Amino acid sequence: MGTSSASAKPAANGGLEPLFRPQSIAVVGASANPKSQGYEFVQGLVEIGFPGPIHPVNPKLDELLGHKAYPRLEAIPGPVDFVISAVPASATLELLEGAKAKGVKLIHLFTARFSETGRDAATQLERELKRRVKEAGIRVIGPNCMGLYYPKAKITFDPELPAEPGDVGFLTQSGSHGFRLVTRGKPRGLRFSKVISYGNALDLDEADFLDHFAEDPDTSVIAAYVEGIRDGRRFFSALRRAVARKPVIVLKGGRSAAGHAAASSHTAALAGQMKMWRAAVRQAGAIEVRTIDELVDMVVAFKYVGPAAGNRVAVLGGAGGETVESADLCNEAGLELPLPPEELREQLRETVPHAWDWVGNPVDASILAWGRRSEAFEVMAMMAASPAYDAIIANLRGIEDALGREDGETVFRDYMERVKRLARESGKAAVFVLGEPRSNEEWRWKGAIRVSEELAAAGVAAYPDMDRATRAMGRYLRDLARRRGGGSSGGRRHR
Amino acid sequence: MGTSSASAKPAANGGLEPLFRPQSIAVVGASANPKSQGYEFVQGLVEIGFPGPIHPVNPKLDELLGHKAYPRLEAIPGPVDFVISAVPASATLELLEGAKAKGVKLIHLFTARFSETGRDAATQLERELKRRVKEAGIRVIGPNCMGLYYPKAKITFDPELPAEPGDVGFLTQSGSHGFRLVTRGKPRGLRFSKVISYGNALDLDEADFLDHFAEDPDTSVIAAYVEGIRDGRRFFSALRRAVARKPVIVLKGGRSAAGHAAASSHTAALAGQMKMWRAAVRQAGAIEVRTIDELVDMVVAFKYVGPAAGNRVAVLGGAGGETVESADLCNEAGLELPLPPEELREQLRETVPHAWDWVGNPVDASILAWGRRSEAFEVMAMMAASPAYDAIIANLRGIEDALGREDGETVFRDYMERVKRLARESGKAAVFVLGEPRSNEEWRWKGAIRVSEELAAAGVAAYPDMDRATRAMGRYLRDLARRRGGGSSGGRRHR
Repeated sequence: MGTSSASAKPAANGGLEPLFRPQSIAVVGASANPKSQGYEFVQGLVEIGFPGPIHPVNPKLDELLGHKAYPRLEAIPGPVDFVISAVPASATLELLEGAKAKGVKLIHLFTARFSETGRDAATQLERELKRRVKEAGIRVIGPNCMGLYYPKAKITFDPELPAEPGDVGFLTQSGSHGFRLVTRGKPRGLRFSKVISYGNALDLDEADFLDHFAEDPDTSVIAAYVEGIRDGRRFFSALRRAVARKPVIVLKGGRSAAGHAAASSHTAALAGQMKMWRAAVRQAGAIEVRTIDELVDMVVAFKYVGPAAGNRVAVLGGAGGETVESADLCNEAGLELPLPPEELREQLRETVPHAWDWVGNPVDASILAWGRRSEAFEVMAMMAASPAYDAIIANLRGIEDALGREDGETVFRDYMERVKRLARESGKAAVFVLGEPRSNEEWRWKGAIRVSEELAAAGVAAYPDMDRATRAMGRYLRDLARRRGGGSSGGRRHR
Repeated sequence: MGTSSASAKPAANGGLEPLFRPQSIAVVGASANPKSQGYEFVQGLVEIGFPGPIHPVNPKLDELLGHKAYPRLEAIPGPVDFVISAVPASATLELLEGAKAKGVKLIHLFTARFSETGRDAATQLERELKRRVKEAGIRVIGPNCMGLYYPKAKITFDPELPAEPGDVGFLTQSGSHGFRLVTRGKPRGLRFSKVISYGNALDLDEADFLDHFAEDPDTSVIAAYVEGIRDGRRFFSALRRAVARKPVIVLKGGRSAAGHAAASSHTAALAGQMKMWRAAVRQAGAIEVRTIDELVDMVVAFKYVGPAAGNRVAVLGGAGGETVESADLCNEAGLELPLPPEELREQLRETVPHAWDWVGNPVDASILAWGRRSEAFEVMAMMAASPAYDAIIANLRGIEDALGREDGETVFRDYMERVKRLARESGKAAVFVLGEPRSNEEWRWKGAIRVSEELAAAGVAAYPDMDRATRAMGRYLRDLARRRGGGSSGGRRHR
């Protein structure tokens, strides 16, 4: 897991926030080409409304997007706290000199083509740059990354990202994963405190950012995408500190040797390292995921599923074979599915006299009056209210069908209200499964989008299929148990 | 796995096809209510164009959808080969008498509320019905199922299912899974020889249908959804026979005790049974899947991925972190990702002089000229042509972006042609990953649908995400290896 860089870094706790709150920003390598990143950095800051001065730097420009441009950093009148660099790698040493002269505190090097190319000259340049950065005492994010998205401070690396802040913090070695988590999380109701894309981690690294998010009062869930780890001991110690304060979900990229080296000896060594890595992540009490989609799923779980005292789940399973599939997936995700107890049966006898003795768990919607989905919701509400269950999972597949009926809008609204009530008022952990997204019928597609947007806006945890829903619920409930001290993972107890 | 029913069934091989080719059909319990199944069975046969007489049977009807109705089976003039029953369970004994009188050969009992309710009286009725069915020598599909979808013979259980026949055979204990596999398979390019939904399997069962599909010249891939197995020995012997002739993919429902019984002793017994089941399925050389989506994925693989001599895959991974994720998923799916060999590097030097020495596997599209996806396709075509690779996987996420450009239509058409060429002309196994389906932008959603429809129509294997694509490719290539005799699963060698 790498060797310690043994550098004399200042304590990171609480130390980075001032750097992330610059009064003024310069974009060096700003460009008038709207397809270039040197343009988009300036555009992003302008559109999100960064309140301080924005200084495009490029000798060929007079101005950009209404902001006066300067030929060099040193030509800017007044102080510059934060520099975003989009110049070529060969120009970075000169850039550093300018930054030193201006008293810059933080540089984000979007600039790439360093060690990640595997080319010798580029790797040497990165090493030299690192030496000089340490010497200058300037902190650096990058190189080869997208830098900082901090909507509350009106800083963004991409004009397409939402302007509203949220409470998910994401540290990511990959810039495209940063964009991906934000854009895929958006329709699921996720918004971000900060996304820090940090690439080759020449200076500030994953441990610094973990410590930062652990302390950050605006962050309640931490997501991390890491490829290489600079210093394993520092990282896991930061990870344990972070987990003690908030949930941390980790996606490790480069779990395999594929794409890096084809030598089987290397693969074997890596497999051993991955085993150690997994054990350490688990011991720290963090959640490990395999893909960005799983990362979104787990963040949604921690933000929106709600409290639960155990893993006994009441499930609305769909119809027929789908109900059986739901049962199997719940079981494989470690969820318990108790049958309705006697008292609940008596209540069901009144509500669904034609099927009360036949309601199982999962509830098979096809045994209830077909087309009257409200009956299924009534049954679910009764199960949610029963002390026999800690949580609910309801399959809403086809809920948008109502929109195809004459009285569709009214019926649909009624369904949606029932779903939201179930999620919010039952006091139980709740997860919903959405309908088929890839529908070729336009009204159905629009209906499905509407369901998903309404649920996201209402802060309801919704998943695209039962497999993902049950996995997320299972891992989430296990983490709650671990935090209660019921787990055996060795994580710290706290509340 | 159940006990042998020890009945003296006739040899099933080749024996069922005449039953599935009736000259005339009666729908008993036909209804004028368009929301009822008794209506939809008649509507389905009419709309798909069943060429023989269709006889609705219901004392309250004079005619239905242009077909004269009869009060009872016996009132129909002329022979009736096949009866579809939508009458209540209590009326089935009488129905059987009528069928005997008319010389009916096959009854499909859509009729439900038998043993599946868990109610004593219903279970006794099913037992009595079974006794009399055997006595009468009439074959039965069901009860509690959707029956027969046989588009080539113009028989369907649902008017919404496609009229075009195909070569996938599906035997399913659940009717809704039958509907689901056909409708989810449709946009993926799947069409069906027959779907047989057989429910409680009072007479004909999973072993009979497996034998049927094994012999059926119209079926090239067999999919099966089974819950209970009547006779384990008969089933596995049929499964081995079927696997020897064509690929068989099995989804077992009720892998867990959940929903059936909450007793943990039962759960433990079931876990042991499931372990035996899995070993037996593997030994028979069939593919086991966990969900309907995985079932679709594997059928698509066997139909459309194409030949491969090994598991060395060339991958277009997406951009940045997504490329790393692709590598990890390939590795976890058992796929090898060799780096481009020397000869290929030399070719790459000419095609992509700016990145030739930096092209890895997976190929990171972000190092190629951005926005010029054609460059990525050129690189993939060169990799597909290289003897270093047996197969290709290409991530097409965002290919519909082209449609947002001025010259969009032309560029998009060019991309699509390159994709299809890659799939068809490389002579290598090929799998493509589609873009994000749940897009809130209409033009993008329509573009994505168009990509998916064009690929399905061209017989190209496409998957909704890299996780599903790599899993399917991995299992498919392992099955090819097993069939070549390279596997250790004990399956028979054949071509």
